[in-house]
Amino acid sequence: MSEFEQRRRAVSEQLAKREVEALVVSSPANIRYLTGFAGSNALMLVSEGEAHFFTDPRYTGEAASVPAKSHVAKGLLILAVASTIKRKRLRKVGFEPTWMDMDQHGRLEKALDRRASLHPVGSLIEEQRAVKSPAEIEIIRRSVQANSEAYARTLKRIHAGLKELEIAAELEFQMKVLGSEKPAFETIVAVGDHSALPHAHPTQRRLEKNELLLIDMGATLDGYTSDMTRVAFAGTPPKRVRDLYRAVLEAQLAGLDAVRPGVSVKQVDAAARQVLKGHNLEKEFMHSTGHGLGLEIHETPKIGKKEKTKLRAGMVITIEPGAYLQGFGGVRIEDTALVTERGCEVLTPTPKELINL
Amino acid sequence: MSEFEQRRRAVSEQLAKREVEALVVSSPANIRYLTGFAGSNALMLVSEGEAHFFTDPRYTGEAASVPAKSHVAKGLLILAVASTIKRKRLRKVGFEPTWMDMDQHGRLEKALDRRASLHPVGSLIEEQRAVKSPAEIEIIRRSVQANSEAYARTLKRIHAGLKELEIAAELEFQMKVLGSEKPAFETIVAVGDHSALPHAHPTQRRLEKNELLLIDMGATLDGYTSDMTRVAFAGTPPKRVRDLYRAVLEAQLAGLDAVRPGVSVKQVDAAARQVLKGHNLEKEFMHSTGHGLGLEIHETPKIGKKEKTKLRAGMVITIEPGAYLQGFGGVRIEDTALVTERGCEVLTPTPKELINL
Repeated sequence: MSEFEQRRRAVSEQLAKREVEALVVSSPANIRYLTGFAGSNALMLVSEGEAHFFTDPRYTGEAASVPAKSHVAKGLLILAVASTIKRKRLRKVGFEPTWMDMDQHGRLEKALDRRASLHPVGSLIEEQRAVKSPAEIEIIRRSVQANSEAYARTLKRIHAGLKELEIAAELEFQMKVLGSEKPAFETIVAVGDHSALPHAHPTQRRLEKNELLLIDMGATLDGYTSDMTRVAFAGTPPKRVRDLYRAVLEAQLAGLDAVRPGVSVKQVDAAARQVLKGHNLEKEFMHSTGHGLGLEIHETPKIGKKEKTKLRAGMVITIEPGAYLQGFGGVRIEDTALVTERGCEVLTPTPKELINL
Repeated sequence: MSEFEQRRRAVSEQLAKREVEALVVSSPANIRYLTGFAGSNALMLVSEGEAHFFTDPRYTGEAASVPAKSHVAKGLLILAVASTIKRKRLRKVGFEPTWMDMDQHGRLEKALDRRASLHPVGSLIEEQRAVKSPAEIEIIRRSVQANSEAYARTLKRIHAGLKELEIAAELEFQMKVLGSEKPAFETIVAVGDHSALPHAHPTQRRLEKNELLLIDMGATLDGYTSDMTRVAFAGTPPKRVRDLYRAVLEAQLAGLDAVRPGVSVKQVDAAARQVLKGHNLEKEFMHSTGHGLGLEIHETPKIGKKEKTKLRAGMVITIEPGAYLQGFGGVRIEDTALVTERGCEVLTPTPKELINL
């Protein structure tokens, strides 16, 4: 049985528990997970023992090799889904409420004309995706490695005087040459006090001597993402920077240390947060400690203060505490890590010392 | 009155015609159009004379400078929208059916508890966005110029032996250095018979001598996209390639020639298609002739066989006929063009001769 078939079988089993006969899958990442299809327009209908795949004529070639019953539809895909539901005489059909839009739902309901009822089925596939298979972990490893290698190659070329945008362009160039189809998110390159903005956009500003440089980057490779943050200093870092860096690194290591199966994510978050509190930096850490990643850059579980998910072996998560001093600068240190049977394997190979450029 | 205010006022005027008092705006591009906000999580509520903007605490800084009444909400934004609807005692509220998902709609309906009714309002803002303001056209010009300049810089470095991925990486590097925040879509670089696939992804395949090279690229700059396709040949092109190229160029020029206010888009499509038919290449041109672009890479109007929209001055569209000979190669030539009062201004400055590398 192929991996895609196994995944779909696991979905069907869950459908029975939710008391629906089939699920309309609208999420592009969920469809990719179930079929490998990476195009921009598709829907699926998954029922026990059967999976139907719907796309438009642009993807006729891809449709032929999708491991499911393929339908190439000329009009709206949702109408082709409705026809299949009617033909199969399905009565109770689930849909993904955060992915199906009102327009699709309205058209589906109308086309079914009360011959089937529609039921929201929340995040079923997303939860299944949280635990990665060995094949998925292998791709994520390659994504992480390409990302770290792109960083290493770029680091050799970075010097004071370069613009944030130029550094970001070089990082993304190297990623692409290393086989990444695109960045996992807009690469963050933030110099000086820009580094105190957790979501800074690269600008024309140049890296000056005696400034912080924060780089947060991720690759997408064969659909799977990676995520890493590193901080460097242009020159010899003063004590304030060294202290800030050391506190965040200590928090990051504490977060990684807490990772193992059975631990709730809020304990992992607390482990990192506690260290920053000890350095009086609790208020300077205003985001969560991390997030799952995979086909999307933000997946279940969120590693946050109030989250209750328990870690399971096979989850791939980031651990990324930070501390941001407005007007001065910020430090964040982030690795991509795998939850193993025994604890945690840091996938990111890049060293974590504060780099002096 | 600021441009954003003018845009919102135009929206409110349309709301009165649709007999709703306010519109919940869910589309990120529509929100950007109405406020300039470029973050990943926001909603708006636009009513006559008032606009409310909702985002989460990550964007507290941006929220302060958004030209609307800003709400930074800790929980789900849709619940904050519901509170505002109740507080304002609105009774008839519109929503965007292709942008509001079932989950949001369900929560909104529940929170309103029958104090207001919800009504689908389709594509109102998208239609308004189809005609660009002088300020928007100015940004699109800069996006087009950065895109063409990135192509020109890269072209100097292209030679047989380079991989598709390396060429794509260089194009995207140059775009970024020139101020583009990201590509408008995954850059297409297709060599040899790959060029016959309209949506090819760049691979490890190398450009060989006597092969076609097709590049389809677009920049996103200050949120606005550009789009261009050019074809080169590594060596002296044989007659079959020259003939194919000449036919497509003739079709592209015929398409551009047909562009002027009042003309329906299907006439523009037909003008290009007719030329290819004259060369017996009608079946080898299996996509539409073009599309509008702006904050998104595909916007109203679609320039297709069956589309009835009439062109209006201020629309920005692509004209991009192609002909694809499976197993041999394909040619597509694409410019970004502005519909002017008198006809058409091609914004793309890049020459359109078949280039011999």
